[in-house]
Amino acid sequence: MLVIMKNDATEEQVQAVIREIENMGYRGIPMPGAQRTAVCIIGNQGPVDDSRLVVMEGVKETVRVTKPYKLVSRETHPQPTVISVSDIKIGGGKTVVMAGPCAVESEEQALTIAHLVKKYGAQVFRGGAFKPRTSPYSFQGLGEEGLKILDRVRRETGLLIVTEATDHINIELVEQYADIIQIGARNMQNYSLLRRAGHATKPILLKRSFAATIEELLMSAEYITSEGNNQVILCERGIRTFSDNTRNTLDLSAIPSIKEVSHLPIIVDPSHAAGRREYVIPLSKGAIAVGADGLLVEVHHDPSHALSDGMQSLYPKQFEKLMREIESLRR
Amino acid sequence: MLVIMKNDATEEQVQAVIREIENMGYRGIPMPGAQRTAVCIIGNQGPVDDSRLVVMEGVKETVRVTKPYKLVSRETHPQPTVISVSDIKIGGGKTVVMAGPCAVESEEQALTIAHLVKKYGAQVFRGGAFKPRTSPYSFQGLGEEGLKILDRVRRETGLLIVTEATDHINIELVEQYADIIQIGARNMQNYSLLRRAGHATKPILLKRSFAATIEELLMSAEYITSEGNNQVILCERGIRTFSDNTRNTLDLSAIPSIKEVSHLPIIVDPSHAAGRREYVIPLSKGAIAVGADGLLVEVHHDPSHALSDGMQSLYPKQFEKLMREIESLRR
Amino acid sequence: MLVIMKNDATEEQVQAVIREIENMGYRGIPMPGAQRTAVCIIGNQGPVDDSRLVVMEGVKETVRVTKPYKLVSRETHPQPTVISVSDIKIGGGKTVVMAGPCAVESEEQALTIAHLVKKYGAQVFRGGAFKPRTSPYSFQGLGEEGLKILDRVRRETGLLIVTEATDHINIELVEQYADIIQIGARNMQNYSLLRRAGHATKPILLKRSFAATIEELLMSAEYITSEGNNQVILCERGIRTFSDNTRNTLDLSAIPSIKEVSHLPIIVDPSHAAGRREYVIPLSKGAIAVGADGLLVEVHHDPSHALSDGMQSLYPKQFEKLMREIESLRR
Amino acid sequence: MLVIMKNDATEEQVQAVIREIENMGYRGIPMPGAQRTAVCIIGNQGPVDDSRLVVMEGVKETVRVTKPYKLVSRETHPQPTVISVSDIKIGGGKTVVMAGPCAVESEEQALTIAHLVKKYGAQVFRGGAFKPRTSPYSFQGLGEEGLKILDRVRRETGLLIVTEATDHINIELVEQYADIIQIGARNMQNYSLLRRAGHATKPILLKRSFAATIEELLMSAEYITSEGNNQVILCERGIRTFSDNTRNTLDLSAIPSIKEVSHLPIIVDPSHAAGRREYVIPLSKGAIAVGADGLLVEVHHDPSHALSDGMQSLYPKQFEKLMREIESLRR
Repeated sequence: MLVIMKNDATEEQVQAVIREIENMGYRGIPMPGAQRTAVCIIGNQGPVDDSRLVVMEGVKETVRVTKPYKLVSRETHPQPTVISVSDIKIGGGKTVVMAGPCAVESEEQALTIAHLVKKYGAQVFRGGAFKPRTSPYSFQGLGEEGLKILDRVRRETGLLIVTEATDHINIELVEQYADIIQIGARNMQNYSLLRRAGHATKPILLKRSFAATIEELLMSAEYITSEGNNQVILCERGIRTFSDNTRNTLDLSAIPSIKEVSHLPIIVDPSHAAGRREYVIPLSKGAIAVGADGLLVEVHHDPSHALSDGMQSLYPKQFEKLMREIESLRR
Repeated sequence: MLVIMKNDATEEQVQAVIREIENMGYRGIPMPGAQRTAVCIIGNQGPVDDSRLVVMEGVKETVRVTKPYKLVSRETHPQPTVISVSDIKIGGGKTVVMAGPCAVESEEQALTIAHLVKKYGAQVFRGGAFKPRTSPYSFQGLGEEGLKILDRVRRETGLLIVTEATDHINIELVEQYADIIQIGARNMQNYSLLRRAGHATKPILLKRSFAATIEELLMSAEYITSEGNNQVILCERGIRTFSDNTRNTLDLSAIPSIKEVSHLPIIVDPSHAAGRREYVIPLSKGAIAVGADGLLVEVHHDPSHALSDGMQSLYPKQFEKLMREIESLRR
Repeated sequence: MLVIMKNDATEEQVQAVIREIENMGYRGIPMPGAQRTAVCIIGNQGPVDDSRLVVMEGVKETVRVTKPYKLVSRETHPQPTVISVSDIKIGGGKTVVMAGPCAVESEEQALTIAHLVKKYGAQVFRGGAFKPRTSPYSFQGLGEEGLKILDRVRRETGLLIVTEATDHINIELVEQYADIIQIGARNMQNYSLLRRAGHATKPILLKRSFAATIEELLMSAEYITSEGNNQVILCERGIRTFSDNTRNTLDLSAIPSIKEVSHLPIIVDPSHAAGRREYVIPLSKGAIAVGADGLLVEVHHDPSHALSDGMQSLYPKQFEKLMREIESLRR
Repeated sequence: MLVIMKNDATEEQVQAVIREIENMGYRGIPMPGAQRTAVCIIGNQGPVDDSRLVVMEGVKETVRVTKPYKLVSRETHPQPTVISVSDIKIGGGKTVVMAGPCAVESEEQALTIAHLVKKYGAQVFRGGAFKPRTSPYSFQGLGEEGLKILDRVRRETGLLIVTEATDHINIELVEQYADIIQIGARNMQNYSLLRRAGHATKPILLKRSFAATIEELLMSAEYITSEGNNQVILCERGIRTFSDNTRNTLDLSAIPSIKEVSHLPIIVDPSHAAGRREYVIPLSKGAIAVGADGLLVEVHHDPSHALSDGMQSLYPKQFEKLMREIESLRR
């Protein structure tokens, strides 16, 4: 860590900073520059807590040389994490495809779509039972009834199930029924939920908030792993920008960025990023080409009657085309 | 609502849209333009659910003419809401000042700061007992012990108490001890928490997420009011932008924007937006000049030993100066 | 176009709007809603100028149903534009690769790199002679001397030349020496330069400003085409967002978005978006997979001695690998 | 400057960096940390050019301790710059008000508005003769004819004139007729124009691009001052964000930020930021309260017939109210 002094900091202030660093058990080395002095901290074996330093007289700011996350860092764990769920492996070069409707609406709807996506090659079925919705007046999901339908989907089709938990109460239920527990973008910094997920016995699919930096996403993953659950799959789903041609701007550069600093697998959700089905196939191909470990895609057999997000759901034929094109890309 | 057809939509597709609108109980009027047709919906008495329409063949998008929120809208309730807490009134032309440390650290710390801010004119004491922190390794608050300290602060100083609830469990405790329950920016779309807040018997201070539009903030307030609690105070605390001179960019235009469309009071937190105490006084003055109903400000008697956010906490003397300058602005 | 009235607009104000629309030669149809009235404009054969309407009493805003651009629109010209430069074709399914250093530094440097990129399959050589730099103290390019070096590169290697013009004076020189004239991101709304480019006899490579929406990019292309030069190649090079893992956030969804609404070819510059060579290969593959018509890539034989942007330049071996991987993607 | 090595950098790579720093004439001090080494550069008397370092093997990035601008920095020139134009002083605690229409439309229009704004206390008349417009089909200004009208305004009313130059040719004409030469937001990084402005004999009003950081704005000011013209007035006019309640988000925190690091005066344009006249008065008051040196405001006697930006122009009565409220704020 580097402590940058203000340009009018006095020699006494610099010395006080050095003494405080020594009190913390490290060494402080002054580094006088043309316009101001900086003090380098050396001798630390892990992250330095700068709260005592940033508030001292004469200090302008501190600059971290190392990252605040640890367990999810590639420096701690150089090999990529591969998560095994039943006979599926996520991470490490395979491409997993999770597909299904935004929300579970009925047993008939779920089974119809599940059979379709299974036929075209999906390995995991997605579908929400607890739906976080911007408006209190929108459909909020079937709750436990929806989870039971998902259970039947697994038994009938053999597909694994990923579904969302939205608070640290309903995660109990979700944990019983799902193979992978999803934490949605709006809950990426819901720390009660993250901590509870850290005690879950199932892998967690953690979606990047549309307002989170890569570092914040990894800090949220660190919340989960620091409680003991190191089975975390990250998911890029678009960030909020000024650009208005899509609902959010899919940040595909997040894939190589995350792979550089973390060992966790990362998949891409092109449906929520785009907000329109027309862009889902090209963005899916882009995601795979850039190195993503898989896709989370919305598919509906009858999008015009979907209770949520119909505009971004692929038609079954489009999903078939997507799977074919992904397959030829992967070869 | 306006349904905009694609430029190659067929006459059959336009007619199908009109029939669907009629099925919904409204009238659809085609509006042929130079390049495409739009269909106007008339006859609705409230928001139209467009989910059936956006997914129809030939439809490009829908454009809302009315807003999706209702209870928090000024159109529903033209007079500004004034919230009475004990003998304090929030909204309607008064300026409330809520001040105190980021986190309650000890009884001594809380009482020291409370006596100071009381002396200079604050009406509400702020201080967190449950702290949402980006890192799992940072101080997370004293929990119920912190709430008890806040209770003592109220009894000793007569200040009202605002403190944060971070999930729908700890809100039970917070509701017992606080006069105003804060919902933080990261939880603005934590719908379980919002619904529970809608059943609380205390006013809610709802902070704008740094990634939320005004409409999304109002929809979150609508979650609370639609459950029965119409005592909601909004709070602008900066949005995430590319600009890096402050931690977040304080969006003071949100104040007149919100006052135009909603009757709810809105205050400003300049401390979290700026991230540095040097900017808190000018931004506070800007907030009051622009029409905010109050301020939420961090103050610490010894910021260099604060357990969180020391850099943005005012020194007591700065807070005294702030109160003096605000007072002269208000006259 | 739709004119949305304020919710307290009077009947007289609505009638005045309708009369003004009739004065403009169209028809105005009132569309009363639950909370407010909107007026639909019909009968227009092209874009409606709303300046008379938005300022009328009782008017809240106008909503455009059609787009403000015309010549660059796919609705005007449904087939994709294919630009022929010498024996190269850009657009329409081919993948063009333009590669070279950020700046021309010397004849030896330019020729060395040109021979390398030619060998691995590039068709166009890029290199700046006039460099727009954030700092007045940075290297600003060799000027006409640099253009002469580029001319020699073409004669020696047979590569076509793309190089940047930064104002409407040096574009005269650039037009003489280059095969394709580049207009950089910072000049995307330099209208004097765009107009002059509209009279050029060479194709224009127009880079998207890091702060421009797709519509603004297309409006800038419209400036060029409206002056008579319809040979415009667009280039996505990253937008400015809060995300800090790359210099800018590459917006690959711009590719399908632009292809949907415009007939112009679009290529991708992953080097400036990423700011780091480590991400250039994955992002290039993503760009091609998403449907881009080509790449603009920085390559340097000795990046550690480059006078600008060394960090984002590929080593020759990396460029060879890129070309191989792109080739296998394309098959 | 600090050179941060990758966490797997070898000792040889660290030594090579130190040798390169010594070749540059400074000293390099290695600073080993828990996970990686950083090298501190000391002994420099001004900014260090890091281009040789960032590209070396084993180097992750460099971190600047000092800022890249110099002439505009408060560290170089601690006293605020006060610009005298005729008998007006800009900066140093005074509040200048520049007001008028977006565009000069006719002599009658300009004189009518000029007499009005003069009467209510404006000191400078604004009005564009050369208009940068997003669409090539919009009104582009009267050109030199407009400048002649502005000259007549000055002679008749005694108001000073500020008007925009859009390229390094028309700045010749603008320089002859104007008292202050405006460089618009879209041209903030038009370096040919900035350099020419650096040779002008009149003060420059430099508007912040809606996509520029404070540092980039100051670097553009440095372009002008480094050519010899140190009479630069900065102008904040809103930045591009996701927030859609105003056209751009006015960044009032830019005022204290700039005053902290630079000696140049800074004024605020609330009209372009808001895009709607309803917000201009509150935002103007906020700007003055936050410490701005003045305002640039659009006023039109008949906004409903304005040829551009009518929606954001104040009515004369609103301007009178604004001036009254500003006056009472200033006391």
